[in-house]
Amino acid sequence: MKLWGGRFEQGTDSEVEIFSASMNVDHRLWEVDILASIAHARMLGKVGVLNPAETEQMIVGLKALLSEIKSGKLELNAAAEDVHSDIETKLTEKIGALAGKLHTARSRNDQVATDLRLYMKLEVESLLQEIVALQKYLVETAEKHLHTVLPGFTHMQHAQPVSLAHHLMAYFWMLQRDADRLKDTAKRISVLPLGSAALAGTSFPLDRQMVAQELNFSKVSENSLDAVSDRDFVVEFLSAGSLIMVHLSRLCEELIIWSTPEFKFVELNDRVTTGSSIMPQKKNPDVAELIRGKSAKLVAALTGSLVLLKGLPLSYNRDLQEDKEYIFTGLDTVRSSLRLMLVMLKNATWNSESMKKSLRGDFSNATDLADDLVRKGITFRQAHEVIGKIVNHCIKNKLILEEMSLKELQVFHPQFDQMSVDCLAHEAVMSARITEGGTSPRSVTQQIEKAKVALANK
Amino acid sequence: MKLWGGRFEQGTDSEVEIFSASMNVDHRLWEVDILASIAHARMLGKVGVLNPAETEQMIVGLKALLSEIKSGKLELNAAAEDVHSDIETKLTEKIGALAGKLHTARSRNDQVATDLRLYMKLEVESLLQEIVALQKYLVETAEKHLHTVLPGFTHMQHAQPVSLAHHLMAYFWMLQRDADRLKDTAKRISVLPLGSAALAGTSFPLDRQMVAQELNFSKVSENSLDAVSDRDFVVEFLSAGSLIMVHLSRLCEELIIWSTPEFKFVELNDRVTTGSSIMPQKKNPDVAELIRGKSAKLVAALTGSLVLLKGLPLSYNRDLQEDKEYIFTGLDTVRSSLRLMLVMLKNATWNSESMKKSLRGDFSNATDLADDLVRKGITFRQAHEVIGKIVNHCIKNKLILEEMSLKELQVFHPQFDQMSVDCLAHEAVMSARITEGGTSPRSVTQQIEKAKVALANK
Amino acid sequence: MKLWGGRFEQGTDSEVEIFSASMNVDHRLWEVDILASIAHARMLGKVGVLNPAETEQMIVGLKALLSEIKSGKLELNAAAEDVHSDIETKLTEKIGALAGKLHTARSRNDQVATDLRLYMKLEVESLLQEIVALQKYLVETAEKHLHTVLPGFTHMQHAQPVSLAHHLMAYFWMLQRDADRLKDTAKRISVLPLGSAALAGTSFPLDRQMVAQELNFSKVSENSLDAVSDRDFVVEFLSAGSLIMVHLSRLCEELIIWSTPEFKFVELNDRVTTGSSIMPQKKNPDVAELIRGKSAKLVAALTGSLVLLKGLPLSYNRDLQEDKEYIFTGLDTVRSSLRLMLVMLKNATWNSESMKKSLRGDFSNATDLADDLVRKGITFRQAHEVIGKIVNHCIKNKLILEEMSLKELQVFHPQFDQMSVDCLAHEAVMSARITEGGTSPRSVTQQIEKAKVALANK
Amino acid sequence: MKLWGGRFEQGTDSEVEIFSASMNVDHRLWEVDILASIAHARMLGKVGVLNPAETEQMIVGLKALLSEIKSGKLELNAAAEDVHSDIETKLTEKIGALAGKLHTARSRNDQVATDLRLYMKLEVESLLQEIVALQKYLVETAEKHLHTVLPGFTHMQHAQPVSLAHHLMAYFWMLQRDADRLKDTAKRISVLPLGSAALAGTSFPLDRQMVAQELNFSKVSENSLDAVSDRDFVVEFLSAGSLIMVHLSRLCEELIIWSTPEFKFVELNDRVTTGSSIMPQKKNPDVAELIRGKSAKLVAALTGSLVLLKGLPLSYNRDLQEDKEYIFTGLDTVRSSLRLMLVMLKNATWNSESMKKSLRGDFSNATDLADDLVRKGITFRQAHEVIGKIVNHCIKNKLILEEMSLKELQVFHPQFDQMSVDCLAHEAVMSARITEGGTSPRSVTQQIEKAKVALANK
Repeated sequence: MKLWGGRFEQGTDSEVEIFSASMNVDHRLWEVDILASIAHARMLGKVGVLNPAETEQMIVGLKALLSEIKSGKLELNAAAEDVHSDIETKLTEKIGALAGKLHTARSRNDQVATDLRLYMKLEVESLLQEIVALQKYLVETAEKHLHTVLPGFTHMQHAQPVSLAHHLMAYFWMLQRDADRLKDTAKRISVLPLGSAALAGTSFPLDRQMVAQELNFSKVSENSLDAVSDRDFVVEFLSAGSLIMVHLSRLCEELIIWSTPEFKFVELNDRVTTGSSIMPQKKNPDVAELIRGKSAKLVAALTGSLVLLKGLPLSYNRDLQEDKEYIFTGLDTVRSSLRLMLVMLKNATWNSESMKKSLRGDFSNATDLADDLVRKGITFRQAHEVIGKIVNHCIKNKLILEEMSLKELQVFHPQFDQMSVDCLAHEAVMSARITEGGTSPRSVTQQIEKAKVALANK
Repeated sequence: MKLWGGRFEQGTDSEVEIFSASMNVDHRLWEVDILASIAHARMLGKVGVLNPAETEQMIVGLKALLSEIKSGKLELNAAAEDVHSDIETKLTEKIGALAGKLHTARSRNDQVATDLRLYMKLEVESLLQEIVALQKYLVETAEKHLHTVLPGFTHMQHAQPVSLAHHLMAYFWMLQRDADRLKDTAKRISVLPLGSAALAGTSFPLDRQMVAQELNFSKVSENSLDAVSDRDFVVEFLSAGSLIMVHLSRLCEELIIWSTPEFKFVELNDRVTTGSSIMPQKKNPDVAELIRGKSAKLVAALTGSLVLLKGLPLSYNRDLQEDKEYIFTGLDTVRSSLRLMLVMLKNATWNSESMKKSLRGDFSNATDLADDLVRKGITFRQAHEVIGKIVNHCIKNKLILEEMSLKELQVFHPQFDQMSVDCLAHEAVMSARITEGGTSPRSVTQQIEKAKVALANK
Repeated sequence: MKLWGGRFEQGTDSEVEIFSASMNVDHRLWEVDILASIAHARMLGKVGVLNPAETEQMIVGLKALLSEIKSGKLELNAAAEDVHSDIETKLTEKIGALAGKLHTARSRNDQVATDLRLYMKLEVESLLQEIVALQKYLVETAEKHLHTVLPGFTHMQHAQPVSLAHHLMAYFWMLQRDADRLKDTAKRISVLPLGSAALAGTSFPLDRQMVAQELNFSKVSENSLDAVSDRDFVVEFLSAGSLIMVHLSRLCEELIIWSTPEFKFVELNDRVTTGSSIMPQKKNPDVAELIRGKSAKLVAALTGSLVLLKGLPLSYNRDLQEDKEYIFTGLDTVRSSLRLMLVMLKNATWNSESMKKSLRGDFSNATDLADDLVRKGITFRQAHEVIGKIVNHCIKNKLILEEMSLKELQVFHPQFDQMSVDCLAHEAVMSARITEGGTSPRSVTQQIEKAKVALANK
Repeated sequence: MKLWGGRFEQGTDSEVEIFSASMNVDHRLWEVDILASIAHARMLGKVGVLNPAETEQMIVGLKALLSEIKSGKLELNAAAEDVHSDIETKLTEKIGALAGKLHTARSRNDQVATDLRLYMKLEVESLLQEIVALQKYLVETAEKHLHTVLPGFTHMQHAQPVSLAHHLMAYFWMLQRDADRLKDTAKRISVLPLGSAALAGTSFPLDRQMVAQELNFSKVSENSLDAVSDRDFVVEFLSAGSLIMVHLSRLCEELIIWSTPEFKFVELNDRVTTGSSIMPQKKNPDVAELIRGKSAKLVAALTGSLVLLKGLPLSYNRDLQEDKEYIFTGLDTVRSSLRLMLVMLKNATWNSESMKKSLRGDFSNATDLADDLVRKGITFRQAHEVIGKIVNHCIKNKLILEEMSLKELQVFHPQFDQMSVDCLAHEAVMSARITEGGTSPRSVTQQIEKAKVALANK
């Protein structure tokens, strides 16, 4: 039985019913739908639209649904048009015709928007916890690797040595921005549309602030037309989520490259790798590949949400029903990827021997040899030229820069001295970078302190 | 029991197992997986890798699975890692250890690629039928509306009158290109990867052409590395699908605008519209809105598929597992949208009265009045200026251009005559456009003939 | 002369030079590049890397460049590799070899990131002003149209009457969120990378806080690897910009539809419309179409920026050079679209007569007739059914609901009375929606007050 | 002087003129615009709309413009509204008022669509040549490396040895599909819209086939409404272009990884690498990074083109003006990336020593050891288990599989024999993969033959 039969003389085509149903997607809003209804009912009672008995009965009924569905006693009806109808039907079965009064001064349009915001509010809060967990693990690991030296890369070429601590902490700060973005998004999610009714507000004397308070929204929407058609927060979340996934994809890319036999900087243990049914030697970093692959899902969902909204006139259009699939995909993907990244890191063994081997003769100490000449009064340009020639000489003669004798160096410039030789050790090169944000153990220790303060403030 | 346990000492983390499982997505490949296995087994028999008895037993087993799953006697195991393992397990239960030989000279990598191509081949063929059905209905409707005149729009302003037949046929040709694109894509789908094994081919003396023939592939892949990592056809299908959806979104946009009380060019009947639980008068074109909204899904999937592939080194990477969700979403969305568009059009009533009303005094006949002067030797530029002034005069004095008397017209230019007045009828204006591809009934009749030929050639 | 010739024995291929040059895109960073260099030089002086005379000379030279380029006395060299080289070359021409010392403790990597952030900081601040200008005009216009009634649409069908003020204010709040998002982005732009050098920090005793203060950055980056490879702010800006454009596209869509002869709710004046060289009557809303079309540019740039970043290992990779085209396109498009939207609105004439005409007999007052029965104790469900039948009756008999007599109404339900008849006036219906955020003049007046407070706080 | 002044009383706002001008983008259509006009003029002469003298004079004038602009004698006017106006103005300056007759039976709408298609037709043809050039170089290089063995990767882990020839040929076939797609797109580009006029066709007795023939279009458009609003070919080209760029991005990714000191499979020579102004040792694969980065541009343009078209009603809307920027960016990016890829490959030195070193002890021969047991009657499953244990044993004891003695092997399984030991050589492993499309020199030689046939057929 449709609730809008009056002016219709023919029933809806069955293909149309299937096509327009959303239960297969929006069923997971069941809990927030009930919570929002409880708040709405209590408010209707307060402003006198429902009498105290009605209010009481309605809230009791809704709470019963809540616990029965939670416990599995009552099941959602997969054949319902959407989750809101299903809940309404179930309430009617429980408390009879009174259930119909719940829809007073409320429309599907503001109800859906409210449910979605409430759901996302809770989800985003819990996503933040996943981020924190990953950040904490990065900090812990960094603390153990202040002196683990590996080549720092630019253009995937060895540039200058950095510590593993510093490298991992780069991801800490990416995640810190991700968390900040989610919090900024959360501010704009936390706006209550309920009370906007179909599009224009209602003539009932609602207390919207009361509902906002009960549901922990920080404010009420200012314009009913906007309220029922605003999906900015969907785009905003998917954009923040895309960046989270891009960050994870970067770390995955590194883990994958670092797991090759050529690099061997890291070994992902048995628990997070898989083999091949054909090739007995295989141990594949599938989790890293899957997370990297799943980053595409967020970009896709973000794009889709923008295409959806482009050019829609006010106010509610049915196109908006499509928003949920993007959100749910986005939330699930970001959550599972954050969790699995943590699982993977916990099962990673860092191979400092391979890193050291990779540094040997890699010229990532060359800048410091140039700087040494600069300190002795040579212009940087000249120094750069001199070192360039030494590098070339080493390559042609298969020499290791840091193993050249003072005498050999002096062939290229007379001002080289023992200090020049000493500065070439990769550990020394790394430790010299003492600027705020630099890779020296001293700087990274300070960086970690700041990270801990940031975590403590959450 | 994993098939790749030998070198592993620890089991896989349970979160990793869930994260990397694909059964919830790829289960629908079950049928093509079995069909491809039957072809593989028959070929292994022919080249002597399996003996005749083994071949026979294996094919019988596979066929039994096929019919048992189809009939519902046997159910897929939702907890399996992927559909391929599930089928293999079921085969083992049926024919014992011999099942293991099916994987000879075959790897998951070429198997997955084969299944996916086989699935898409069949799906695309059936999508083409949906397009034809919609095209046929457009032709039928057009034939009835050669003389139904409505304003043709540019910039959403009345430009020149066109027939409804001509307008609807515009969509016929869009769909015709869509079908052509799908067929071009189908050529590139129809390439058999099986025999590429993990990445490098195998040392078994396979007869790949035989498998291709049995499975109706038009050729075999030329390079094994490419074969296991090529997903171009996914992108290509999603691109073709995006254009289908863009076309449908354009028609939906028109149906939505034309359904407003201001336009009333069309009425979507009860069977394809829905009401409102709040507003008793509502009759909403939900189907058109949903199809328009779903166009975003294809653009999203297309974007996602490209993001997925960007920068992946050869050959197979686990990221590729993510391709299926884009494909299945794409296939389902395009199919249901094409079908529902047809349902919607069948339930549309075209309101020629409203169209006629909208044309009255709309100046879409103004060009022809200018052309009339041109025919009398006035330059088009002068004529344009004169008519512009008449239009302005009409607007200011609320006059209807086609109702002006010859005398009134002659105030603006002495060379107007009765022919000038006659050319202003909208029907006449439309009928004058006799170029190939123009809107005159004569031209549209020819157009429809060509359309029928095109349909007959499918 | 390359600055990195030492180890190279062959020059760069000329096609490579053209391909990798970025001057055609990044030339507009010239001013921020100089400003950042002045701050860097002053700091180098303070920490003793440059002596006072060198510092003075360098700053004087840089300031001379600044004013000479600004005044047009000096021109940028289109053939330079990038803007940074060009400025460095120009400085060398001015102050000789000393110019080389400017690059001490600075790399192209942190310099580019600093320039880009500084540029965007200034641009985003000025974009905020464009938003405010548009918001102010919306408020001004709204204040004049508290009582201008038009149909409020859902599903593009008449739903309930709203005021033009309310409708326009919906866009005010969208822009308000846009401004908030830009401010949030600005926080994350305002982080100074300078001092991160190539990737690892430097061994010079830099005072990064001093530079941050001079350039008005609110903090310094915490991790050098992250600092040179972070482009989150690009994505974030393009996401915020996409939403701005989506909002404008929605308003454009409405202006285009409302400009059709069928609607005629608005007339865009001669100054913002164009004609046709063929059709003398044409007056096209090109500006609205172009802004709507340009929304695609932001979505494209956003997508591109994410594809760019996906899967890049740390730290700087040359791919990042591509970020600027997305940013500049984004900034220019958003700015010009905001400005032209304001120009267009200033040249829009709202046609309240057409709106009124459109409301007549549109049933957007039907909900209130149902509510009337509810107030008389009928359940909403029954009431909905009754009104649905009245609507049907009106349609079949071409009756106007608000012109039905009490007697006629009572045929459908005995409890209708004079109040029922009175509530049907569209102005009354609109005025009854008195909830916070509703469309009644009283609510909208409060809404406007809040809007003014929000504007005052900027 | 506007050509559409008649009904306008006020001039266009200057900001609007700048905003809506397209000369900065569409100027490159100047040549095809003239060519299309010549064809149109000749046809107007043939059907008698122009008399022979007029026709002659007009064609002479247009040809003069063509050669004068080409030679630089005449310059395009950057301040013109668009290239079509500029050409028309120039023609008027040359032949006077007669120029006005060129626009007979033609509108800006069909003119723009014709120009764009003509331009793309020529561009796509020349892009195909770039693809062929790259393919030829791949074939040539492959022929030299049939026996250069490197690890074949799946999941970026060593899987089985392949030849460099086979690896490079994988890209040949990707490019082959790219060329096929471009040709399919070219079919749909090659449809002449001219004669569709503004939207509805014209009343002049045009000979559209004649124009199509002169301009080398393979057919004329069938429906005028569709013809002026169809931009499918833009999307289709950008989709094909995105795949080209994705393919190049994959090869770039490999070149970048293979250029690391850890891999050293390839060295990109001085001519295609750049250094660092800071780090004297740097030699960066910038070209590969830039091409990889530019792949994002195509995905962006593709997305943008779809967003642009979504939901547009028929027929021409000004939004479509935005199509050209996507096309031109797409064409330029694909062309330069294809060319630079070739330049880069020509400057690549393949390091077979490093490849060999990387293979040693990498277990990519493990599958063949399992196959050896299978040939001796062991089931593959058991064999897999055995080899897995050997791999584990080798890892723990730092042993090289291919250097194990028969005796050592027999500890794990008694059936190992000398053949088992022999099959472990990586060269042997590679040579054994003799299936069609496999990596054995024999198979790759056949593959190369097919590639040459394919090239010859172009």
